[in-house]
Amino acid sequence: MSFIATPQSMHFDEPLPLQGGGSIRDYDLAYETYGQLNADRSNAVLVCHALNASHHVAGVYEGQPKSEGWWDNMIGPGKPVDTNRFFVIGINNLGSCFGSTGPMHLHPDTGRVYGADFPVVTVEDWVDAQARLLDRLGIAQLAAVLGGSLGGMQALSWSLRHPQRMRHAVVVASAPNLNAENIAFNEVARRAIVTDPDFHGGHFYAHGVVPARGLRIARMIGHITYLSDDVMNQKFGRQLREGIDLKYSTQDVEFQIESYLRYQGEKFSSYFDANTYLLITRALDYFDPARAHGGDLTQALSVARARYLLVSFTTDWRFAPARSREIVKSLLENNRDVSYAEIDAPHGHDAFLLDDPRYMSVMRSYFDGIAQETQTAAKEAA
Amino acid sequence: MSFIATPQSMHFDEPLPLQGGGSIRDYDLAYETYGQLNADRSNAVLVCHALNASHHVAGVYEGQPKSEGWWDNMIGPGKPVDTNRFFVIGINNLGSCFGSTGPMHLHPDTGRVYGADFPVVTVEDWVDAQARLLDRLGIAQLAAVLGGSLGGMQALSWSLRHPQRMRHAVVVASAPNLNAENIAFNEVARRAIVTDPDFHGGHFYAHGVVPARGLRIARMIGHITYLSDDVMNQKFGRQLREGIDLKYSTQDVEFQIESYLRYQGEKFSSYFDANTYLLITRALDYFDPARAHGGDLTQALSVARARYLLVSFTTDWRFAPARSREIVKSLLENNRDVSYAEIDAPHGHDAFLLDDPRYMSVMRSYFDGIAQETQTAAKEAA
Repeated sequence: MSFIATPQSMHFDEPLPLQGGGSIRDYDLAYETYGQLNADRSNAVLVCHALNASHHVAGVYEGQPKSEGWWDNMIGPGKPVDTNRFFVIGINNLGSCFGSTGPMHLHPDTGRVYGADFPVVTVEDWVDAQARLLDRLGIAQLAAVLGGSLGGMQALSWSLRHPQRMRHAVVVASAPNLNAENIAFNEVARRAIVTDPDFHGGHFYAHGVVPARGLRIARMIGHITYLSDDVMNQKFGRQLREGIDLKYSTQDVEFQIESYLRYQGEKFSSYFDANTYLLITRALDYFDPARAHGGDLTQALSVARARYLLVSFTTDWRFAPARSREIVKSLLENNRDVSYAEIDAPHGHDAFLLDDPRYMSVMRSYFDGIAQETQTAAKEAA
Repeated sequence: MSFIATPQSMHFDEPLPLQGGGSIRDYDLAYETYGQLNADRSNAVLVCHALNASHHVAGVYEGQPKSEGWWDNMIGPGKPVDTNRFFVIGINNLGSCFGSTGPMHLHPDTGRVYGADFPVVTVEDWVDAQARLLDRLGIAQLAAVLGGSLGGMQALSWSLRHPQRMRHAVVVASAPNLNAENIAFNEVARRAIVTDPDFHGGHFYAHGVVPARGLRIARMIGHITYLSDDVMNQKFGRQLREGIDLKYSTQDVEFQIESYLRYQGEKFSSYFDANTYLLITRALDYFDPARAHGGDLTQALSVARARYLLVSFTTDWRFAPARSREIVKSLLENNRDVSYAEIDAPHGHDAFLLDDPRYMSVMRSYFDGIAQETQTAAKEAA
């Protein structure tokens, strides 16, 4: 049984300038906090989410015992990121569909639902929005920014945009940018959504429909790429759904893996917003801090001041270890303090959300170190 | 400039029993032949096709200089499979959309277009249909059956169903069955087609539409999996389509890889039949000769009498070298004569259609060997 989490929301009147041009104003950010901010406000840890996640990082909601946050195994009292020692903040990003302002909300200029007119937001925009929320919470410097996958990109971006505002960046199962294959998978998912007749150019809300067909396909593709080949073979292999007999049908479910994917697609399409899917996959595509430096990642990371932990997983073919190693190499070339763990885990990209003991142990040790340094600094200041 | 190929067609009245039950009758098979059948009819090579290919294996059609067959680099006068020495036969499979009877043709019982009622055909059914065409051509024994990918599965199946009718099986970039990930990609593609409102349960012909959205998505997924990660990065990387500026758009093309995939999807959807896509991906899913032997591939291959060449490509993640090695291992356990080449090529699954010099050289040597043995046998018989 986990602790009780309480979602909160903060409103921002002032326009936030966006990387793609223009700005967004009158928006809300949903967030949650766990643990206590210490006296010198030095124990705050920001957790950034990936595609299908939110500010609800840990704990459960009152009266909903099965509503564990998406990283509840990692964050909480006595857990690797120990909320008895850290003040942990989860924020839902702009454009998402879990509480912060997104495409399903009203455009303040027109009074109509944003839909496809919601501005394209980037990792950098999210980081800046998060920084404003921290301003309002009175947190000048974070002990750490932590994230996996797209969340890891945010942690990396934080260390470049706000180098003085954080002591540690913990970048899990991430990459300095997406490669062509990753962009390709995102593009197929987007095309499935955009070409669904129920998408209506992104203004499906007004038609009382959702492009569920497209969302299902998008999620099925996603699921394949989150898992490793090995774990899929181990979990499903060529198992048939109904005993030992083949039905010889092109449209019915025949194999267990088909049943699993259809179920995942169906579930996802019932709650995820199609425009959010487009926005978040585009944020993934666009992220590329080296771009402004002619592709030179080492130069891009030269402004970094944080200390880093990078973690990758051997069977993750979406954000392969080689991509994490690129970041490690560029940080070392900048004489940054970097720890790197390459975890031999069978679960593919999904591994970053699972309970691999070596992974958990690496995270626990690293955050123990941060906690000790935070306490020492607090004592010295006292 | 290649030689001139002439498509032919053969009609079959008698019902062909199908693995999934029932039979198909009154069907046509499109085929082409290149080279001359020798006096003792011992130099015939059957070439089996994969998903998006046909009986038009080599040469060009009269007056269409750009209509090269899909394996024109491999097969022809002086090429690795030398049509000056071999009589090569390409057959379009049942259910395909390039000339043989398929879902777009009339069901002889109802006089209506088959559509979704076209029977589910398997690799084994195709092999049996091919064998009947060879009967009619008067070819009792093939020098070799040759195929890549799904075509390789047919070559393997030939050696199990008609072991006395062939001397060599050449199985390129293939596998003893699909793994869960492969089935998963097929299933997503099928769902994209089946859930396209223009699919009409497979009877779209009557509505004068085609499920082009679904076909586009299916093809885009296919293309990603045919290429290697490396070759995609090399060919496209993160190159933008329009110069150096980002447009910050969720629906427009931004990266070259997106443009490439959309183009491939568009092209494919203009000529490929949606029901054929379902049928052929299902034939891939179902192929599993070990299944009838409790998963024991060695036992399944114990009836084999042919000599084998297997070829795989290091970066092929769809039909990985490990899958070819499974076949090699099981053949060796049956004391079969097997050659195996694992080609270090960057192009992923597509490599089997390309001109890698080591690959071409392996194929040439092997077929030279077959040609010599065929000539020797012919002389001894004379």
